Amino acid sequence: MRVLGVDPGLTRCGIGVVDGGHGRAVRFVAVDVVRTPADAELPERLLAVSDAVERWLDAHRPDTVAVERVFSQHNVRTVMGTAQASGVVALAAARRSLPVVFHTPSEVKAAVTGSGRADKKQVGAMVTRILRLTEVPRPADAADALALAICHLWRGPVSARLAQAQAQAAQLAKAHRARLAAARRKE
Amino acid sequence: MRVLGVDPGLTRCGIGVVDGGHGRAVRFVAVDVVRTPADAELPERLLAVSDAVERWLDAHRPDTVAVERVFSQHNVRTVMGTAQASGVVALAAARRSLPVVFHTPSEVKAAVTGSGRADKKQVGAMVTRILRLTEVPRPADAADALALAICHLWRGPVSARLAQAQAQAAQLAKAHRARLAAARRKE
Repeated sequence: MRVLGVDPGLTRCGIGVVDGGHGRAVRFVAVDVVRTPADAELPERLLAVSDAVERWLDAHRPDTVAVERVFSQHNVRTVMGTAQASGVVALAAARRSLPVVFHTPSEVKAAVTGSGRADKKQVGAMVTRILRLTEVPRPADAADALALAICHLWRGPVSARLAQAQAQAAQLAKAHRARLAAARRKE
Repeated sequence: MRVLGVDPGLTRCGIGVVDGGHGRAVRFVAVDVVRTPADAELPERLLAVSDAVERWLDAHRPDTVAVERVFSQHNVRTVMGTAQASGVVALAAARRSLPVVFHTPSEVKAAVTGSGRADKKQVGAMVTRILRLTEVPRPADAADALALAICHLWRGPVSARLAQAQAQAAQLAKAHRARLAAARRKE
């Protein structure tokens, strides 16, 4: 399973690709940061991010796209641009019928460092160690994109198994209710 | 000049087309509201909005796209979806090299009702009157999309003239400074 992780942004948009294997084995494939000039118009910036993501989807053909979930507790102006960038990333994936999953920054940090409150440095150090890189990916957006992909590879199966177990439980409960109702009708 | 106005949203996205003429003459062309199911996945919803906007751009060939500027003072969840929808709208326009302009809700309200604090009902009533429609466009998102297009047609030239005047003033000031500097060098 190959995951393309995206840390969305207009000034810097981190993109990283990681392959998953058996268990927790992961392999680094590629990473880069797309930059768009702050003085360019918003539509042009979104187009540049979109084009870059499309090129990466074509070049690396991931199975899933993992995107950082944007929150709005920070600077409003920045958050709006980030949300718009994440929208065009999700759109590019949807156009290719690729599943898109969103992970919160704390989920990502917890997945790679064990703590949802880890700082950028810790995330960078763990991404470097996990992927056996020779140096810390820079800027932090690059490390974050790889961390997102790792997070998805490690959390994804758990979430999927949980969803499956819940579906089975619901199915069993439904069958049980049906049997009860049938028994009542026979009485 | 033909303007396509978009009141971005995932649950309801208003799209309206208005033609401008001499002075303040405007003509209604079309209006609709794109809806996406609340239980669908975000990427699917963004794709539906994007596809609808692309169809409208192809069908009506506007000269400019006017989009409501999103603020984040409201419900965070809704605002993020709205920002993402506005991002894919801006992207669709940028892909066609169409200019995209953003107008704030209060600019739009002020343009059509004279007050930046007008309510939805007032905006609907004025849009109906300005475009000489037989009934108020419903839901409010449809009226808002038309109001955005009208706002751009009425404000656009003023903003453009203002920007031009400012550019000329800056040019004159620069030339004046250059002359002063040249005069000083000769002294």
